[in-house]
Amino acid sequence: MPEKKLSTQPIGPRLEPDARRAHLLAVGATAFGAKPYDEVQIDQIAQSAGVSRGLLYHYFPSKRHFFSAIVQSGYDEILQATQPDPALPPSQQLRASLTAYLDYVESHPHTYRAIFRSAASPDQAIQDVVNRNLDLQAKRILATLGSRPSAKALKHLAIRSWLAFLVQAVLDWLDEGSRIPRRQLLDVCVGALAGSLAATEDGG
Amino acid sequence: MPEKKLSTQPIGPRLEPDARRAHLLAVGATAFGAKPYDEVQIDQIAQSAGVSRGLLYHYFPSKRHFFSAIVQSGYDEILQATQPDPALPPSQQLRASLTAYLDYVESHPHTYRAIFRSAASPDQAIQDVVNRNLDLQAKRILATLGSRPSAKALKHLAIRSWLAFLVQAVLDWLDEGSRIPRRQLLDVCVGALAGSLAATEDGG
Repeated sequence: MPEKKLSTQPIGPRLEPDARRAHLLAVGATAFGAKPYDEVQIDQIAQSAGVSRGLLYHYFPSKRHFFSAIVQSGYDEILQATQPDPALPPSQQLRASLTAYLDYVESHPHTYRAIFRSAASPDQAIQDVVNRNLDLQAKRILATLGSRPSAKALKHLAIRSWLAFLVQAVLDWLDEGSRIPRRQLLDVCVGALAGSLAATEDGG
Repeated sequence: MPEKKLSTQPIGPRLEPDARRAHLLAVGATAFGAKPYDEVQIDQIAQSAGVSRGLLYHYFPSKRHFFSAIVQSGYDEILQATQPDPALPPSQQLRASLTAYLDYVESHPHTYRAIFRSAASPDQAIQDVVNRNLDLQAKRILATLGSRPSAKALKHLAIRSWLAFLVQAVLDWLDEGSRIPRRQLLDVCVGALAGSLAATEDGG
């Protein structure tokens, strides 16, 4: 296929380094979101992005580095998009953040899948990124609650566990073609967090 | 190390095939629970079990088959141990099953970690085992609720998501050396399920 060979030459637009990096991360997220890690081919991503394999490796020295950067950048975007609004009461802060979270999911389904499906990775470096970000999210939610110190460890466990609930709910919802109304999905997630946190108060 | 070499000969007890298979699964669960999938060495497991590498491969033709069998056998044990008691009212059935679940976790921490940590595997065959068993567990819980058909899809999503909550909670609890009282862990898990299911009733 000589024509195919020719088309593997860099043909993408000329971009500044930051924009190029962001473009590669976006193309990579789509690829890693669509199939399992092991089946993703770096060459194909370079081709889709219209760059040479060498240029891609210039930005990300290995497939693992690349994937790890995609996961981290997805988390950064989610954390940015779901920043709580301190002007609202805590329960409304959570609902507003969750609404923003689902907005992000709907506009970035590939990145979301790439992070949370492929991030079920046995690779320790990826696990570290996932755990660090889970903790960041949990601490942020914990901070909005102003919890009593005595139940902090239990609340932290409840919130981390609830984040796993949230991810599973959203992935199932995406897999079902979003047939369940978004409002109901949101209510179920809010209900799970409220129910688990209420239980931390009882025993406190 | 000639002495070492000698000791790699089969030295384990003579066992009937079913007992041998169960023994290999138990030794394997400990190995896969202790470190990531990629770092587990089949040779070491054979040596720990006192059998030859060939005998292990006689029971399980590949590392993936072996791991998959460990995961399935762990799920079987959990499903068996947590069988709901239909004589109890639904809320007590759940609490009784969860108590049995935590009993299992405490007596089989390695198997539990092997299933739920390493089962975060990009391997499709393992994912299929995990998903099939998640669905089995979710359907069993759903059946105890006698839910209205209209909210069934939403309840199924809530329960599957709650199972992810449960696994994360238990793994964190194990990692923390079970410093959080078991009773509080149980209350938080029951609270999360009750809260999410209550939300499925509101929207009807």
